[in-house]
Amino acid sequence: MIEEIAAGGGSWEESLANTPASIIVDWGTTSLRAALVTATGMTVAARETEGGIQFVEDRRFEAALMDAVGDWFEAHGLLPVLAIGMITSRNGWIEVPYVDAPAGVDELAGGTHSITLGNGATLTFLAGLRNPAGEPFPDVMRGEETQIVGFGLERDMTLVLPGTHSKWARMENGRIDRFQTYVTGEVFALLTRHSFIARTAAPQAGTDVDWAAFERGAKLAAGGSPASDAFLALIFSARTGILDGKLAPAEIADYVSGLVIGSEFRQARAAGWFSHGDRIGIVGNDGLNDRYRRVAPLFGLSAEEGPADAATKGVLAISDRLPRRVEPA
Amino acid sequence: MIEEIAAGGGSWEESLANTPASIIVDWGTTSLRAALVTATGMTVAARETEGGIQFVEDRRFEAALMDAVGDWFEAHGLLPVLAIGMITSRNGWIEVPYVDAPAGVDELAGGTHSITLGNGATLTFLAGLRNPAGEPFPDVMRGEETQIVGFGLERDMTLVLPGTHSKWARMENGRIDRFQTYVTGEVFALLTRHSFIARTAAPQAGTDVDWAAFERGAKLAAGGSPASDAFLALIFSARTGILDGKLAPAEIADYVSGLVIGSEFRQARAAGWFSHGDRIGIVGNDGLNDRYRRVAPLFGLSAEEGPADAATKGVLAISDRLPRRVEPA
Repeated sequence: MIEEIAAGGGSWEESLANTPASIIVDWGTTSLRAALVTATGMTVAARETEGGIQFVEDRRFEAALMDAVGDWFEAHGLLPVLAIGMITSRNGWIEVPYVDAPAGVDELAGGTHSITLGNGATLTFLAGLRNPAGEPFPDVMRGEETQIVGFGLERDMTLVLPGTHSKWARMENGRIDRFQTYVTGEVFALLTRHSFIARTAAPQAGTDVDWAAFERGAKLAAGGSPASDAFLALIFSARTGILDGKLAPAEIADYVSGLVIGSEFRQARAAGWFSHGDRIGIVGNDGLNDRYRRVAPLFGLSAEEGPADAATKGVLAISDRLPRRVEPA
Repeated sequence: MIEEIAAGGGSWEESLANTPASIIVDWGTTSLRAALVTATGMTVAARETEGGIQFVEDRRFEAALMDAVGDWFEAHGLLPVLAIGMITSRNGWIEVPYVDAPAGVDELAGGTHSITLGNGATLTFLAGLRNPAGEPFPDVMRGEETQIVGFGLERDMTLVLPGTHSKWARMENGRIDRFQTYVTGEVFALLTRHSFIARTAAPQAGTDVDWAAFERGAKLAAGGSPASDAFLALIFSARTGILDGKLAPAEIADYVSGLVIGSEFRQARAAGWFSHGDRIGIVGNDGLNDRYRRVAPLFGLSAEEGPADAATKGVLAISDRLPRRVEPA
């Protein structure tokens, strides 16, 4: 089952005006997202299939890929395919070794691995990034590095990539110097779906964000009291606030969201990722940017949001440095 | 279904030698635990039923109680019953208002609520404890205050009560002065059952604690690096340790246990509950005391473990101060 995603110019006539130059595949555990993009990074078509690697039987990855984008080859020729995500992991098609930070576009391009598909097209797997200086163990990302490259590596600054597993990264000397993972989104999901908090209020899909509740939680985490460092205690305020009549069940999900994201900033500050007065970048694509942008000033930060298509820009910037490029037949 | 629990003197003859003086009922959401105790606090019989308040239909609490301990009345007369736990909450039999801290035995006795059962026996509900000074909202406990009383309120010191929702409490001037809840046990369960960690290794029931793995996690949380404050990042080391070949799947559950309990200590220190060199008390009954006792020295603490029957001692100490006592018929 293939789900077409709205993108600029879905019709054949419009696509003709925007010649596709490559196919970018973000191939994760549960889904495969494919985009047909021009040389300048404009997406002319996008779709998502249920061909996530956990659903691919007997390692029939090429068949799954052709199911997803085979008609694009027929329509546009043997475009190069650029793949990121868990497809490059141990459980994927080919395990591509991580590139070690510090790494810029050239190092990331050098870590790619290309194969030729049955139809003759070239499929290039992009490498993930490893931070060998991570404490207590080297940290890893697989895909987010393309968003950082797409944001731009020109300036020395800190970037946060909101997500299930958020990344704080430092760009220095035109390269990604180091980074650290925070499991903020996952902890939020665990708390609101499975914990004592879930009994009160699970997040409601499709409802507007209650920004007042969100900022209450975030301000608590940003507060000057030493108790604001006690994350495992702060969480319990989702219950005591209800008991004390100070929080309504409908406010809990966004209150907890503010509390955990605020705590991520507080902990990132303790870990040395920023100081009061810094300007940071925020780049992501899963609707969390707004939340992070609202928390930043509570910690004395100004924030610059990256482009929505940062990942596409990054993948193309890396592929532009590939040693050789197979042109469409 | 009633499950008899091994206790000192289970046979009729032995019980005769130890005259029961009261019945203590720890009545929670999922189970009802009852103990037949002597005036000096010795447990002569104990049992657990599935009569937790969430399973009691149509508020038939008295019937559930008689199902659990009716035969004890027949055998020993109309002993007074002392009840603690969620049975005194909004969803329980009678909602008993919290007693506000600071509170000692007299204040806790003053907050009890007694009723007469159909058979003429007196049932006394003990109040929970509220910390009105809690930040950001007043904190609450319901039952743990009996363990603190049973530990002894004579000395000014800090006490930790390990659990799903751990409590750090400060005893001052013979009273429980203030306390704070840490949801450590719950976060451990969420991480090991439902998160990215669960895919690696859920805790194995019945297996021995891997103390080396536990202390690795605890030492990381106790470490001098600023990154040790970044709890949301520390957790991710359960994955990166596996990826880097530094942790084995079988070690993960105890590693994470050490990491979250160590983080609880670190956060409790930040929140002002102790300083390096202090002596603290540890009291609990769910097998976590060993873990907390091993973490204490990592933070420069000496630890004194409370008696296993602290809750029973505390309930009896409070009931000894009740304004009037109904003697068994």
